[in-house]
Amino acid sequence: MTSQFLSGKTAIAGIGATEFSKESGRSEMQLAVEAVMGALNDAGIDPSEVDGMSSYTMDNNPEIEIHRLIGGKELKFFSRAHYGGGAACAPVVHGAMAIASGLCDVVVVYRAMNERSGYRFGSGGGGGGGNPDDFESANFGWYFPYGLMTPASWVAMCAQRYMYEHGATTEDFGHISVACRDFAATNPNAWFYQQPITMEDHQSSRWVAEPLRLLDCCQESDGACALVMVSAERAKTLNKPPAMVRAGSQGAADDAQMMTVYYRKDITRLPEMGVVANTMYEMSGLGPDDIQTAILYDHFTPFVLPQLEEFGFCKKGEAKHFVREGQHARGGRLPINTHGGQLGEAYIHGMNGILEGVRQIRGESVNQVANVENVLVSAGTGVPTSGLILGQG
Amino acid sequence: MTSQFLSGKTAIAGIGATEFSKESGRSEMQLAVEAVMGALNDAGIDPSEVDGMSSYTMDNNPEIEIHRLIGGKELKFFSRAHYGGGAACAPVVHGAMAIASGLCDVVVVYRAMNERSGYRFGSGGGGGGGNPDDFESANFGWYFPYGLMTPASWVAMCAQRYMYEHGATTEDFGHISVACRDFAATNPNAWFYQQPITMEDHQSSRWVAEPLRLLDCCQESDGACALVMVSAERAKTLNKPPAMVRAGSQGAADDAQMMTVYYRKDITRLPEMGVVANTMYEMSGLGPDDIQTAILYDHFTPFVLPQLEEFGFCKKGEAKHFVREGQHARGGRLPINTHGGQLGEAYIHGMNGILEGVRQIRGESVNQVANVENVLVSAGTGVPTSGLILGQG
Repeated sequence: MTSQFLSGKTAIAGIGATEFSKESGRSEMQLAVEAVMGALNDAGIDPSEVDGMSSYTMDNNPEIEIHRLIGGKELKFFSRAHYGGGAACAPVVHGAMAIASGLCDVVVVYRAMNERSGYRFGSGGGGGGGNPDDFESANFGWYFPYGLMTPASWVAMCAQRYMYEHGATTEDFGHISVACRDFAATNPNAWFYQQPITMEDHQSSRWVAEPLRLLDCCQESDGACALVMVSAERAKTLNKPPAMVRAGSQGAADDAQMMTVYYRKDITRLPEMGVVANTMYEMSGLGPDDIQTAILYDHFTPFVLPQLEEFGFCKKGEAKHFVREGQHARGGRLPINTHGGQLGEAYIHGMNGILEGVRQIRGESVNQVANVENVLVSAGTGVPTSGLILGQG
Repeated sequence: MTSQFLSGKTAIAGIGATEFSKESGRSEMQLAVEAVMGALNDAGIDPSEVDGMSSYTMDNNPEIEIHRLIGGKELKFFSRAHYGGGAACAPVVHGAMAIASGLCDVVVVYRAMNERSGYRFGSGGGGGGGNPDDFESANFGWYFPYGLMTPASWVAMCAQRYMYEHGATTEDFGHISVACRDFAATNPNAWFYQQPITMEDHQSSRWVAEPLRLLDCCQESDGACALVMVSAERAKTLNKPPAMVRAGSQGAADDAQMMTVYYRKDITRLPEMGVVANTMYEMSGLGPDDIQTAILYDHFTPFVLPQLEEFGFCKKGEAKHFVREGQHARGGRLPINTHGGQLGEAYIHGMNGILEGVRQIRGESVNQVANVENVLVSAGTGVPTSGLILGQG
């Protein structure tokens, strides 16, 4: 068994999503079913063929309920990935393994949430649904008494140190926001469609947790996304051009914690993303120069900079130059988050970014990048994470 | 990709467990670490090599915390399986896929719980930790008002119907209990060591939920179990004889629900176990006649009978004859639960049964069956489930 085995064995053959809103007006289960049916219709695959499903531990929609409601018959595989948005790409990795291993033929991946109209875990309290006597809740107990109660506050600690170490400024964070909102402005499915922002807007937005301003923080959203995976061979016979899974991995390293990694010697890096990067490049034989566009998880702008570094798009501490030159923006060397990101399109815990990756491979994005061969997609930062490289069939 | 791909590619190389008790006196995290270190020591593998982990969604011990505490370095894979004890064999299936796909080298599987001294989900309330506004809790809302509030009561409905349809009696359920307690009586690690029971004991034990008596219900236990998986090739170079993963699958089918499958046309069957059986026999090329001993999930005795049928050890409705003849007991054609089962050894949500399967393959069981080539292990019944066939290296 070599790590190359998984590369190119499977593909994403269909994608589906609901509208993205602040109040969906219906259950998470209904959102999930709509997205899954959309993905199956996109691929041209009958629901009765679905024999595997994967999602996040944080998703409230049991596999078997969705499977019944779409008209499924038998499941041979189901899995969940832990750690919030860090799970985003993991269900695709699991699905690839299930299909490449021969256990499954058709795996559905989904994430559905009424995050804005419902539980609003971005507003603090430990990440949503924590049992007060479990280990993770106890861990947050070391931080809450000091006022570190929200995701923004947890990220702010790392952002402050990154600025100090590498001479980055809040304007560098602003470059991420402005570029993502620029893409969202031309994406009719984005919440912030036709609402671009300027650097002045960013700099004048209020502090949420210094050095994070309001416009450094992603949205809270209601909505669902789903995708359908099959073998590479079958994908080539279906409706849409396949998005091949060239590589995929999860990653955890170096005293990982859920959002609170302050015991690390260097909190300006994302070593779990380094694990994902190294594993994916080895698996695929590809490198940063082979990637034309990327979806980099943007719940908070400051963590986009070290992602550019961990994936090798620029050297350690030099992401500030990359974004000042606009290399990450429309027309740059590596446009990122061409759907508008979670800052501009919607916060569907990273799953909407995978769908945009598929559209870029298909040539269907509203902000299509020219000559896309491979797209890199990352998952949540500040937590154990995951990633994908999707490529042409 | 064929379904045979996964067969024989990976093996369980090490097993570990804590003592089984009614009050462990320490945290679930400590139990988990003890079991994992035990499994790594058994295999002779350094904790720094662990690059994958898998468990149940119901487990309270985050992968990254265990990994840190054992001295782990990097993780490339982690997964959870949903549906309570139905998950028991699923982490091994996931680990087999991760290793066979080349993503991981060493995967640790674990389950740790202070079920008896802690949350006691067997006492009712929906299965533990349910969020009152989630889909699963809402589903139980259809049953609670009618008094169906505990796992025993949910199983009793199916058991009653099984007796009616197939002429089974409570003594047939008793044959399971008596045989498991007989094995436990000679297992020093079992809670009921040296405490066998007679059919008279069974028949005179009080009703818990008719037709289930007290001695039809498994224990509530504190404890942890873990195992270590590697490639088949590597397993052959390590301390102990490898337990090869000949087959593994999860299963869900036919209007599955969590414990409440009453909308099925026939509630005396376990169609999800049928999916597992068919998939595993196809994957391995083995059949019922190739299995010398089995670990059949025994949280409640009545569901052992249809398991014997779904796996093809006897025909539909004929398990009563199988157990009346003692074919499932010491010296029978297919001794089951030679560790004493969850009735006799401990209720570690099925994970302790996998460890006994490994011991049978190694020839290390205190109740060793002669000439074991292959062991079948099943997971929770009345829920989406999973299974394994372990074999000689």
